[in-house]
Amino acid sequence: MSKTVYYHAGCPVCVEAERALLPLLNREVEVVHLGEQSPRVAEAEAAGVKSVPALVVDGQVLHLNFGAALADLK
Amino acid sequence: MSKTVYYHAGCPVCVEAERALLPLLNREVEVVHLGEQSPRVAEAEAAGVKSVPALVVDGQVLHLNFGAALADLK
Repeated sequence: MSKTVYYHAGCPVCVEAERALLPLLNREVEVVHLGEQSPRVAEAEAAGVKSVPALVVDGQVLHLNFGAALADLK
Repeated sequence: MSKTVYYHAGCPVCVEAERALLPLLNREVEVVHLGEQSPRVAEAEAAGVKSVPALVVDGQVLHLNFGAALADLK
């Protein structure tokens, strides 16, 4: 099983996402606070992380946040 | 176990997120394509979904997308 890392920066969205998502996952997750561990920002960037919160799984990056408006689908 | 629903609209980000995230979850997920099931947009809105892709778990909404730039953390 490869490493799964959750990168965040302590923001409300980050904390909410962590609380909601991590208990649902079927694998262990390393939680990295980039605000407190800034040397690891380069590691996150190398993994393809463009924003936080983000989950990196098996080399794939999943960005969590608010995106396009649902109104656009109507 | 309450219902877990993944709302999406067939966009590349949606498909990528679905492929990356759903296999990691320790519960069954209903996948709803809002572009093809537009009557369910109201249901998604009522659940608090503001954008897609989004995962609704136990009444909590998790929006998946690209957000704030990582550069802001440097």
